[in-house]
Amino acid sequence: MQIIRYPEKNTWEQLLKRPAFDTRELEYTVSAILGDVKENGDAALRRYTAQFDKVTLEEIAVTAEEFEAANAVLDESLKTAIRTAATNIETFHRAQVEPVTMLETMPGVQCWRKPVGIEKVGLYIPGGTAPLFSTILMLAIPARLAGCSEIVLCTPPGKNGAVHPAVLWAARYTGITQVFKTGGVQAIGAMAYGTESVPKVYKIFGPGNQYVTCAKQLVNSAGVAIDMPAGPSEVAVFADDSCVPAFVAADLLSQAEHGADSQVLLVTTSKTVIAAVEQEVAAQLALLPRKELAVKALDNSKLVLVNDRDEAMDMLNAYAPEHLIMACENDEALATRVVNAGSVFLGNYSPESAGDYASGTNHTLPTNGYATAYSGVSVDSFVKKITFQRLSREGLQALAPAIEAMAAAEGLEAHRNAVSIRIKNL
Amino acid sequence: MQIIRYPEKNTWEQLLKRPAFDTRELEYTVSAILGDVKENGDAALRRYTAQFDKVTLEEIAVTAEEFEAANAVLDESLKTAIRTAATNIETFHRAQVEPVTMLETMPGVQCWRKPVGIEKVGLYIPGGTAPLFSTILMLAIPARLAGCSEIVLCTPPGKNGAVHPAVLWAARYTGITQVFKTGGVQAIGAMAYGTESVPKVYKIFGPGNQYVTCAKQLVNSAGVAIDMPAGPSEVAVFADDSCVPAFVAADLLSQAEHGADSQVLLVTTSKTVIAAVEQEVAAQLALLPRKELAVKALDNSKLVLVNDRDEAMDMLNAYAPEHLIMACENDEALATRVVNAGSVFLGNYSPESAGDYASGTNHTLPTNGYATAYSGVSVDSFVKKITFQRLSREGLQALAPAIEAMAAAEGLEAHRNAVSIRIKNL
Repeated sequence: MQIIRYPEKNTWEQLLKRPAFDTRELEYTVSAILGDVKENGDAALRRYTAQFDKVTLEEIAVTAEEFEAANAVLDESLKTAIRTAATNIETFHRAQVEPVTMLETMPGVQCWRKPVGIEKVGLYIPGGTAPLFSTILMLAIPARLAGCSEIVLCTPPGKNGAVHPAVLWAARYTGITQVFKTGGVQAIGAMAYGTESVPKVYKIFGPGNQYVTCAKQLVNSAGVAIDMPAGPSEVAVFADDSCVPAFVAADLLSQAEHGADSQVLLVTTSKTVIAAVEQEVAAQLALLPRKELAVKALDNSKLVLVNDRDEAMDMLNAYAPEHLIMACENDEALATRVVNAGSVFLGNYSPESAGDYASGTNHTLPTNGYATAYSGVSVDSFVKKITFQRLSREGLQALAPAIEAMAAAEGLEAHRNAVSIRIKNL
Repeated sequence: MQIIRYPEKNTWEQLLKRPAFDTRELEYTVSAILGDVKENGDAALRRYTAQFDKVTLEEIAVTAEEFEAANAVLDESLKTAIRTAATNIETFHRAQVEPVTMLETMPGVQCWRKPVGIEKVGLYIPGGTAPLFSTILMLAIPARLAGCSEIVLCTPPGKNGAVHPAVLWAARYTGITQVFKTGGVQAIGAMAYGTESVPKVYKIFGPGNQYVTCAKQLVNSAGVAIDMPAGPSEVAVFADDSCVPAFVAADLLSQAEHGADSQVLLVTTSKTVIAAVEQEVAAQLALLPRKELAVKALDNSKLVLVNDRDEAMDMLNAYAPEHLIMACENDEALATRVVNAGSVFLGNYSPESAGDYASGTNHTLPTNGYATAYSGVSVDSFVKKITFQRLSREGLQALAPAIEAMAAAEGLEAHRNAVSIRIKNL
C-alpha cells in the first residue's frame, strides 16, 4: 500500500486515477463470437461451451429435475441466509415501486407517468470458483417487483456440466424458471439475439470479466440496453480517530480479495489511523485464502492523509467511489455532502459486506468513476416510465395559444395545424 | 402512403421495421473532430465554427449583452407561450422529485436512497432553420429540479454569429447562464472533454443529426453518460370509427414534417378511416410549407388495417413507438395495455403537439424501438440515486449469520471476516 501525505490538490487527478480498462482490443474476438451466436444459435452455444467450459451439453436449458436436485443438496443454513437477504432486498426495493400520480397541469390537461416493467430481461451470472448467487437476488428481486414478464438467466456450467446448486436455488426462490447453461460472450450474444433455446431480451444485466463487459458494450451499441458500463470493483473509506482500525482493515481487504484489479482507497485525517490500519491489514491478510489476489490489489491501493474533513469530502467526491464507508464522527451530517458515490456505509458497524449480501440495498453499483452520472441497479432499472396525457376540449383550448405560438416560432406549421384544426372544430 | 390490409402476424416484423440507422460509417470523421477538440480546445471550436457555420467567433460564450439583446427583441406573445409551457413542464416534472424514505429492513438495519443531482450536465440544442427552444425547457427544467449545479448549453451560431433570441431567452428563463456558440460534433467534444471556455460535463443531453448522434455514442463508449440512443422521430396512431380523420391526418403530418426519415404509422380497425385519413392527408399536405420533407416521410409511412383492438395493441406494442396517439373508444381502458411506447396521447383532443410543447410531459423520448427498454427524459435522467445504510450493533448482530453464510458459500472469506471481526468485538 502506498502512503500519501497531504497531497496538493493539483496532484489529485493523478492520485485518484483508475487503471485504464479498455476493452477495444478484445473487440475483434468478441465480435466474432457474437456474430457466430447470432448466425448459428444453439449450435454455436454448444460449441463454445465445449471449448471454454469443457462440457458437452445435452440440454442448454436447466431442467426441472436439476432444480429439484439443487434443492435437495443445498445446505439448509444457506437457504435460511438467502431467505433473510431476499426479504431485506425485497423490502428495500419494494419502496422504489412508483405509484401512478395523476396530475392536472392546467384545467383539462391531465398528465401522468406509469412505470411498466421491461417485458424481457436477461441476467448474466458468471461461473468460476465463487458462484455469485447473491447477484441473482440483486437482479431478480427488482425485476420481479418491476413486473418484468420474462426473466432469463444465463450462467456457465461447471466442469461436471451442472450449475452450482446455490445459483439454481436462488434463481428458483426468486421466481426464475428459465436458466440456461451458457456463459461468457456467447451468453450475452444468446440473450441479445435469441437462439432456439434462449429467448431474445431487451435489456441485459449482470457482472462479468472483460470479455463479457466488451460483449455487453457491443450489443448495447447495436441497440440492446444494458444495466451500466462496468469496471473493477472498488471501495473508499473515510476514517477519523473514532474508527476501529481492525474494522477498516477488514473492509479494505474484503474489497481487495475480489481481484488483482480491485481498487482500495483510505482517506483519513489521522496519522495514527494510517499506521494502525497498515499493521492490521498485514495481520489479517496472512489468514486469507484469497491472499494472492488481495496482495496484488493492495499494491495499487492508497492510504491518503488529508488536512481536514472538508478536504476528505472533496477528494472522495472527486474519486466517485462505488462503495464509500464513513467510519467517523457525525457521519450522517458529513454524509449529506456526498455527491458522487454508488452506495454509502455509515459508522463502525456497517461493513460493505452487509450491503453486498443482505441489508437490502443493491450491490450492482457504478464503478470506475461512473458514480458521477450513473445510479446502482434498482427497480428503476427494470421499468420504462411511460407518460400519458388526455386533454379535454377546454384543456386544449386553454393550451392552444401557447402550442401554436411555439410551433410557429420553431417553423413547424403542421405541428401548429394539429392544434388549429381541432380548435376550429370545437 | 402504403395501405396494408389484415397483415399476417408473421409479416409484422418486416412491416414494422425501421430503416437502418447506422452511424458507424461516420465514425472516422467524427472521431477525428472529437480528437481535435480534445487536443486543441477552443482553437478547434473556432476552426470548426468557421468551417461549418461560416462564422468567425470573438467570444465562444454568449455574453450578458447578448442575453439582454435577445430579451429586447423577442416577441412578447412568444415569451408568454414559453412561460405557460414552462409552468406546465415544471408542474409535471416536480412530481418526479423523489423524497428520501428511511427504511428499517430489519431492526437496527437502516437503509435509504437519496437522489442527488448530477453535478455537471451539458445540453445540446441544434441550430438550423427551426430553433428548438422548446427542447431547452424539456432539458433545463428537470435538470434544475434535480439539483444539477452546473448546466452548460451548446448551440451553433447562425450566419450572423448570433444565437436565435428564442433559444437565449428560453435558456435564461430556465436559469441557464452558460451558453456556448458551438455546434455539431465539436460541441459534443467540448462538453465531453472540456475546453478553455466550455466546462467538461458528466452527462450530455439533446437531439442532433447523425453526426451529433455518432459523437454522443463515441463519447459514451469513452465514459461520458448520454440521455439515450437516438433515431428518427416517429408517431403511431390507433384510430377507430370514433376518431376524426382530419385530426388523425394532421397528427400524421405533424410527424412527417420533421424530416424525410420520420416514421408515421396508422393502425385502424376501420376501412372507412383509412380512406378518409388518406384523403385528409392529401388535402392538408398541400398547404404545408415543409411539404417536400413531409412527402418523403409519407412515402415510407403505412396505414394498416387490422381485425380488432387486440391485434392493434399487439402490433403497436411490437412497434414500440416514440409517440402513440389513441383516438378510439374507451381509450383509457385500452391504454392500460400499452407496454412499449414513449408517450401516449388519449382521445381526439390530445395531439402530439400538446406534449411536444406545452402540456407538461417531456418530448425527449425513446425512438427506433428503444421504448422497449428506455424511458423518456425525466428528473430521473438528471440524478444519481445513492443508497445509504447504517447498521447498529444489534442490527449487524442480527444480520451477521446471513452475511457470513453467504460470503463463505461464495468463497469470499475477507467479506465474511469484515462481519466476524466486528461481532467478536461487540
